[in-house]
Amino acid sequence: SGTEWFPSVHPIKFAGPDSKDPLSFKHYNASQVVMGKTMADWCRFSVCWWHSFRAAGADPFGSPTIARAWDDGTETIENATRRVDAAFEFFVKLGVPFYTFHDVDVTPLGRDLAEFNANFDRMQEVLAAKQAETGVQLLWGTANLFSHPRYMNGGMTSPDFGVFARAGAQVRKAMTVTHELGGSNYVFWGGREGFQTILNTRPRQELEQAAAFLRMVVKHKQDIGAEYQLLIEPKPREPMKHQYDYDAQTVIGFLHQHDLQDHFKVNVEPNHTTLAGHSYEHDIIMASQLGMLGSIDANTGDELLGWDTDQFPSNVRQATLTMDAVVAQGGLAPGGLNFDCKVRRESTDPADLFIAHIGAMDTFARGLKAAAAMREDGAMSSLRAQRYASWDTDAGRRAMAGELTLDDLERIALEGPAAEAGTASGKQELYEMELSRFV
Amino acid sequence: SGTEWFPSVHPIKFAGPDSKDPLSFKHYNASQVVMGKTMADWCRFSVCWWHSFRAAGADPFGSPTIARAWDDGTETIENATRRVDAAFEFFVKLGVPFYTFHDVDVTPLGRDLAEFNANFDRMQEVLAAKQAETGVQLLWGTANLFSHPRYMNGGMTSPDFGVFARAGAQVRKAMTVTHELGGSNYVFWGGREGFQTILNTRPRQELEQAAAFLRMVVKHKQDIGAEYQLLIEPKPREPMKHQYDYDAQTVIGFLHQHDLQDHFKVNVEPNHTTLAGHSYEHDIIMASQLGMLGSIDANTGDELLGWDTDQFPSNVRQATLTMDAVVAQGGLAPGGLNFDCKVRRESTDPADLFIAHIGAMDTFARGLKAAAAMREDGAMSSLRAQRYASWDTDAGRRAMAGELTLDDLERIALEGPAAEAGTASGKQELYEMELSRFV
Amino acid sequence: SGTEWFPSVHPIKFAGPDSKDPLSFKHYNASQVVMGKTMADWCRFSVCWWHSFRAAGADPFGSPTIARAWDDGTETIENATRRVDAAFEFFVKLGVPFYTFHDVDVTPLGRDLAEFNANFDRMQEVLAAKQAETGVQLLWGTANLFSHPRYMNGGMTSPDFGVFARAGAQVRKAMTVTHELGGSNYVFWGGREGFQTILNTRPRQELEQAAAFLRMVVKHKQDIGAEYQLLIEPKPREPMKHQYDYDAQTVIGFLHQHDLQDHFKVNVEPNHTTLAGHSYEHDIIMASQLGMLGSIDANTGDELLGWDTDQFPSNVRQATLTMDAVVAQGGLAPGGLNFDCKVRRESTDPADLFIAHIGAMDTFARGLKAAAAMREDGAMSSLRAQRYASWDTDAGRRAMAGELTLDDLERIALEGPAAEAGTASGKQELYEMELSRFV
Amino acid sequence: SGTEWFPSVHPIKFAGPDSKDPLSFKHYNASQVVMGKTMADWCRFSVCWWHSFRAAGADPFGSPTIARAWDDGTETIENATRRVDAAFEFFVKLGVPFYTFHDVDVTPLGRDLAEFNANFDRMQEVLAAKQAETGVQLLWGTANLFSHPRYMNGGMTSPDFGVFARAGAQVRKAMTVTHELGGSNYVFWGGREGFQTILNTRPRQELEQAAAFLRMVVKHKQDIGAEYQLLIEPKPREPMKHQYDYDAQTVIGFLHQHDLQDHFKVNVEPNHTTLAGHSYEHDIIMASQLGMLGSIDANTGDELLGWDTDQFPSNVRQATLTMDAVVAQGGLAPGGLNFDCKVRRESTDPADLFIAHIGAMDTFARGLKAAAAMREDGAMSSLRAQRYASWDTDAGRRAMAGELTLDDLERIALEGPAAEAGTASGKQELYEMELSRFV
Repeated sequence: SGTEWFPSVHPIKFAGPDSKDPLSFKHYNASQVVMGKTMADWCRFSVCWWHSFRAAGADPFGSPTIARAWDDGTETIENATRRVDAAFEFFVKLGVPFYTFHDVDVTPLGRDLAEFNANFDRMQEVLAAKQAETGVQLLWGTANLFSHPRYMNGGMTSPDFGVFARAGAQVRKAMTVTHELGGSNYVFWGGREGFQTILNTRPRQELEQAAAFLRMVVKHKQDIGAEYQLLIEPKPREPMKHQYDYDAQTVIGFLHQHDLQDHFKVNVEPNHTTLAGHSYEHDIIMASQLGMLGSIDANTGDELLGWDTDQFPSNVRQATLTMDAVVAQGGLAPGGLNFDCKVRRESTDPADLFIAHIGAMDTFARGLKAAAAMREDGAMSSLRAQRYASWDTDAGRRAMAGELTLDDLERIALEGPAAEAGTASGKQELYEMELSRFV
Repeated sequence: SGTEWFPSVHPIKFAGPDSKDPLSFKHYNASQVVMGKTMADWCRFSVCWWHSFRAAGADPFGSPTIARAWDDGTETIENATRRVDAAFEFFVKLGVPFYTFHDVDVTPLGRDLAEFNANFDRMQEVLAAKQAETGVQLLWGTANLFSHPRYMNGGMTSPDFGVFARAGAQVRKAMTVTHELGGSNYVFWGGREGFQTILNTRPRQELEQAAAFLRMVVKHKQDIGAEYQLLIEPKPREPMKHQYDYDAQTVIGFLHQHDLQDHFKVNVEPNHTTLAGHSYEHDIIMASQLGMLGSIDANTGDELLGWDTDQFPSNVRQATLTMDAVVAQGGLAPGGLNFDCKVRRESTDPADLFIAHIGAMDTFARGLKAAAAMREDGAMSSLRAQRYASWDTDAGRRAMAGELTLDDLERIALEGPAAEAGTASGKQELYEMELSRFV
Repeated sequence: SGTEWFPSVHPIKFAGPDSKDPLSFKHYNASQVVMGKTMADWCRFSVCWWHSFRAAGADPFGSPTIARAWDDGTETIENATRRVDAAFEFFVKLGVPFYTFHDVDVTPLGRDLAEFNANFDRMQEVLAAKQAETGVQLLWGTANLFSHPRYMNGGMTSPDFGVFARAGAQVRKAMTVTHELGGSNYVFWGGREGFQTILNTRPRQELEQAAAFLRMVVKHKQDIGAEYQLLIEPKPREPMKHQYDYDAQTVIGFLHQHDLQDHFKVNVEPNHTTLAGHSYEHDIIMASQLGMLGSIDANTGDELLGWDTDQFPSNVRQATLTMDAVVAQGGLAPGGLNFDCKVRRESTDPADLFIAHIGAMDTFARGLKAAAAMREDGAMSSLRAQRYASWDTDAGRRAMAGELTLDDLERIALEGPAAEAGTASGKQELYEMELSRFV
Repeated sequence: SGTEWFPSVHPIKFAGPDSKDPLSFKHYNASQVVMGKTMADWCRFSVCWWHSFRAAGADPFGSPTIARAWDDGTETIENATRRVDAAFEFFVKLGVPFYTFHDVDVTPLGRDLAEFNANFDRMQEVLAAKQAETGVQLLWGTANLFSHPRYMNGGMTSPDFGVFARAGAQVRKAMTVTHELGGSNYVFWGGREGFQTILNTRPRQELEQAAAFLRMVVKHKQDIGAEYQLLIEPKPREPMKHQYDYDAQTVIGFLHQHDLQDHFKVNVEPNHTTLAGHSYEHDIIMASQLGMLGSIDANTGDELLGWDTDQFPSNVRQATLTMDAVVAQGGLAPGGLNFDCKVRRESTDPADLFIAHIGAMDTFARGLKAAAAMREDGAMSSLRAQRYASWDTDAGRRAMAGELTLDDLERIALEGPAAEAGTASGKQELYEMELSRFV
């Protein structure tokens, strides 16, 4: 180390909303207190390793466009270590407290599992040293069970038991290293846990394989004494035609079917949510309402494109609804807002990496401030309270408590809720106007 | 009655694949035995009342186009009874053993709940008489909790307790009448159980309302001694922006969260499945694999249109995959294949109603024959068995049985599944070629 | 008249951004000058008759939910006249200078064409009087060729020549009345000009029918001495499976194929644009760039719903890109921003009609101010100018002027554009950050 | 050469519909005469070089899965020549008369343009020799203007003039080689001719760049004396957010706007058609009806996936509608059915390449036979003729000929087309039943 990889970039500072400097925060002021916590505490921003320090702009129709001075493309400890230097310089200059990785992002692959594990051990030391030096921490780790050809039909749901075993070995190691590095969470994104064609697939068997695997995970977490949060990240499709972890509610339902709901929460990525046909904020809100929101991969997609674009967010309305849900549950910890985002393939300057993250951090800072202002204003929550007021009656409470029957309901109905029951205006346009006051 | 409403249509007969007569079956031969059951038993075809005897071709941009001789448009017992006459003439001439209805399809609305209930009692008698006369039976009944303005924000999930009570009264009555008429199933399609904007909505409360309601339903079923199957029909959206019963797995997950999974199964409508972003057959197969497929609303949509077109199926490949799943679980009873389909708004002739159903019945008959032939051939299931063979090993079985740990898996992986584990060809094109031999 | 239909609503005033009164403008200040014109002149807001004074909340799954005091539901001159009173009271209180209608929105249908025409004459007088009294003007008129059953297969593209003739008669009359009322534009939205199934359709013939029809329209405009702008409004689908006027470029291409490009421009509705798979602003910008943007139906849809939701806009980013295109072409006149939007079916209060329009007007006012500020700032246009700078060279200009050959280009390429040609960063994230400074 | 690369595969023979051998044709019998031409002449099958001899199964989430014995991964003349050997062995064993390529598919890249051109000359010799030896011909050639980083913002529509020049040089060479090899067509697929964000883009300028480029192409074709057909292949998006050549009608409209319509036709790829929101057959039929269908990239996608899956077709209904359009225009020559399809990433066996093509060829053979049978049967075309019969009247013909005015149409309408004009049943279900008799 010693080399400065972003020599032209100074540590990013808060410069206020009127700043025209792209390399400054206009809204994110880490130490500013909002509703009793600092912005840093509410947001718990994290940079991801794969997009920001491994990807180079290749897409299905074109070669890499992005070259980085610190990366010579080799699968060596030296190159991997230089990446660590560059990455931590980036984290520190940007001012984020967390990062995330897949095992293969930080570790040279080696010739076989044994060598990979040895490399991973070596890189764990390098990362631990950098964490100690900078104070940047690991938000979560994960194992990549989708890039290698062996995982072409899935890892835990592979039709090949040998692949299942290999996946188990890889997860075991990644869970252990994540624990050693003090990671706050461990994530499962089932990239290829699904199928390309139902014709060659036994879905029930594959779902049972997944459940068996996750039970081993719970056991291993106990065995190693890890206390991190386990998370499953849903995605409906891509790379597979169909993926089992379709969306938040599908995952939560699966956990309940296998009695695993106390051991896992959900890591929601809004780009996956929109691919599943739900609005940006849907899975964040639904998971939170069901007590299952563990962390957020804070990116955005394009509702009119059918694939994962993993873009940096710039939509303040969406950020406001996101942060409103986060505030409502008292914060995301031990989770955070992880930027699972990549600069566009055409954004070839190193500075773009800073600009992109700054823009996204400012977007969530605006969202947080708007959500706080909206809550302090109180108009929208009053409207909602009024809308559901009829449930705050004796009959309403008894219905919820399971003390009424359909016979009771018929009697109540015959006795006469006003003819116009249910036709009170839903006032969507007023709610939208109220939201517009803050975004 | 006495009037013949389809005078130019004779009872539809099986005339064989070379027939050019639109008013004949080319493939559906009710008494033909396939894999040990008659076609009629495998298919259990049903005609729905709403599309075929109530809808008249209105759409969001246009007025009704379809006039029926028997329907004068009034909400009277006389008109409702004429509809019964016409409908049963249709059922008998078409040769289907079942029909389905919503309460409001068969019952004049009346001025209030009491009058509606009285009308429903009267129509129950009319229907019972026709059932006895013709032998046609009720596949399922349901209550319409979405058309009346009071249900604009849902029935069981309404923010207005009065609406919840009214929904309960209506379901109570419809459950009772369905029981009296010997219905084999009772269905819940939550047309407006969802939201138009999250801004005015408390999703957790609404989901708990739904669970409370369904627990009352289970209780009422016991109280009246009904033995029919209770079914929930998923749909992701339309009319609402977002509906809670998004797809089969969401519903199944919800049932597990509320410990209701032993009381309800799923009624899958493929048009809803494709709206949820899944392939036509997806929810049928997944529900069946999870032991939760209760019945099928046998229609089709258009994958490139974003709304429910409720078209009559003519795709033999999809019908084959559907019937293959039905055969795999030994049949659909007490469920069936209900034609929740409507003739196009431009199909203004009464004969179109017959042609449409005949075409659909022939499509499923071809699907059934193809599924049977494919099973007898056995090539595809052999390919699948071979693909999963590695699980039929001691280690595979122990993994599934929960007897292995991640440590075991690492040991197995280090000891060496072949380097090429997982890269055996998935042979999708061969599976598709095999399927093409039969469709 | 004399009756006040919105007694509780006072004329809506500009009250500034801190106002919490839903019945006030926070941003739209009609007389405020922005880039040399008043907001009123830039925006040219218009209220549409169909959604705001005819629709009542019916949808494919439910009955009307909205009752209006002035509307008794009859097809009479009296009822139609009361609607005019209410509508103009609304226009005046809201402070919009324009309105739009279909012939059937304002005219009782009558028993036949002759009676309809007579009714239309009568209503023309009523409208003319109200226009004179209030100063509110007609932005555009149109004929409804999609609601009546006769148009179930289209008007100008009907397979039935009788329908084509009837459509011609209806358009002739609507063009004349629009002219008499001083309408600034006349619009064609081909609601059912397309097909439900290609199997029963001759697309080439139908496209030629449309061209023949539009040539008659051009002739009729000349004959009656009208000087309004003729507009075609694209929509890709709904109500039909496929509509010929798919999007702006399809329409512009069709006009060129039939040498009609000098007689028609495009009326862009963003909700139709997103249904066609393009971003909200796409057709506005493309039509404007091609010199063909005539007017805008200023609504919004939901990118994740597959049907036309015709919602009131509240997205400032989209409004900014819209107004930026409007400013770039020097304004929309004789077109305008027509609110082809409906209050949600659940928004049952008369006040919601005001709130919805106010919210939308404020949204476009914010968009206008942001577009103006962005232009004054100049940073984004500088970035763009720099990006295309290599075309401001002799070779670049000669290539555009048609003075170079592929041989020339090869020579230039061999002589050597720098190896890195084309890899300068596209800087999407920086552009997004720049936009975020203003929205 | 001399090495046999597919030693276990014999030349594929027609074995009839009952064959269970995956490596046999069940329906495609090249010399069988259908409606006056051989199947080979109607179908003009072609194998594409890129998917079948360059791609190796990489996707955005995973590494290559497919290794081929003849390909050592180097960019050398030796490796490229081995690929030619393998490819022509494949073409001959499969029995296809045509192939297609991009310049970079067959040519080692070299260090610069001059070296690339020299390599291309060398490979032209290799290909010419193989063509002479085997009789397999070049259906079309094209230049890849999207994979190299320099083309990240497009080729002919790049903001960088140097890239435009480089694209011109590359097209010049590819046009020349295609001419020398006797190619029947030359294709433009504008992979990145579009934009990722409108914010950094000048669409009007870019469209004019494209027109200027295509005019040079027309000139160059004349200069070299080529007589092949020039084709543009539409695609709505992917890799770019938005591509200018959105669909067939957009391209045709663009050609008309720039008076290029006599120089280019359209190469339709159904997978692109469905990505544009149209049914599989839509662009094939529309282009054909407008006299602009030049060739077909005979693949399929998945309507529910939002990206180009380039799958081998197995849907006989779609193939029937495709071949019906081909038969209607008397054949596709000089175009053909080019298999722009790839085996799935999981289909790792060399035999899968044969199976996939055989399945697709059989699918189109079934489509051709069904289209011919349907035409001989005549029922569907009779139904259509009857549907449009009212246009075969004096008034109908005069309307089409431009001899009527809106005044005439009003007179005709007042005189009275029957009240029920336009409401004759469209009979979609009957048309679908008729189609089902043949597929």
